[in-house]
Amino acid sequence: MSSTTAAANETITDLDLVLKRVLNTSKEKIFKAWTTPELMKQWFVPKPWTLSKVETDVRAGGRSLVVMCDPEGNEYPNKGVYLEVVENEKIVFTDAYTEAWIPSEKPFFTGIILLEDASDGKTNYTAIARHWKAEDREAHEKMGFHEGWGKCAEQLEELCQTL
Amino acid sequence: MSSTTAAANETITDLDLVLKRVLNTSKEKIFKAWTTPELMKQWFVPKPWTLSKVETDVRAGGRSLVVMCDPEGNEYPNKGVYLEVVENEKIVFTDAYTEAWIPSEKPFFTGIILLEDASDGKTNYTAIARHWKAEDREAHEKMGFHEGWGKCAEQLEELCQTL
Repeated sequence: MSSTTAAANETITDLDLVLKRVLNTSKEKIFKAWTTPELMKQWFVPKPWTLSKVETDVRAGGRSLVVMCDPEGNEYPNKGVYLEVVENEKIVFTDAYTEAWIPSEKPFFTGIILLEDASDGKTNYTAIARHWKAEDREAHEKMGFHEGWGKCAEQLEELCQTL
Repeated sequence: MSSTTAAANETITDLDLVLKRVLNTSKEKIFKAWTTPELMKQWFVPKPWTLSKVETDVRAGGRSLVVMCDPEGNEYPNKGVYLEVVENEKIVFTDAYTEAWIPSEKPFFTGIILLEDASDGKTNYTAIARHWKAEDREAHEKMGFHEGWGKCAEQLEELCQTL
């Protein structure tokens, strides 16, 4: 592992939930699937949930909107802002703002996605959910973070293999 | 006023405390005084308070450290992160992170500084403190926001006139 990559420089804290996977696809495809609305609709929530609307403005200060739908058709909008974007390497976003720079009702977490070349064209995929409060980290874990984000990572890998 | 400036595009919200002044100096000097540690030490806190240490990394994701000292010599460190920087026009920072992207104990406010040309070489200076919670806005106001930030704006103007 090179010490100059974004992933190598990232420290894990006590407030983090972390998913690590080796995905059998390239950094470039994962980055594209993470930032393109039509692709996000195909993997971003565990099926049978769906996304009814996705908007992304992929740059520091750009906003994101993801509307999740449960199988009964109830909609759950999620607004956020990108804080840092390094193409094909790193995406940082937060729900602390609904757009630049409007505070959300409750800063819950910061998402940090790290992509790093592995051997044989695979990618070391790290997804961190970093919370402001220990109780939010715990609640997120109990909500099924590992199962949910794990299933999504599988859907992401499958989709990328078709790109 | 041009409708294309950062200042004209900024909406004031219910969670904001706002200081507006016409300063008899240029945008360029104000921006320099807001971002250069040795200059910040000369105006950033109401005298007789002082700053014992200032570090600035003026870019989106860069960190800031400002250590304030009361007249008895007690130190009060303030850590934050810049979220958006437009040279000579706009500076956005927050205490929600102590560095990129480490959550602080309590997201309290986002600072938004807007600089806009006025007539006769003066500058429309707008300083917004935007809070996550109404009670924090109220507490900040009772702590003396208007008096404190007002006095600092005067110190800022005086300093810029010497640059």
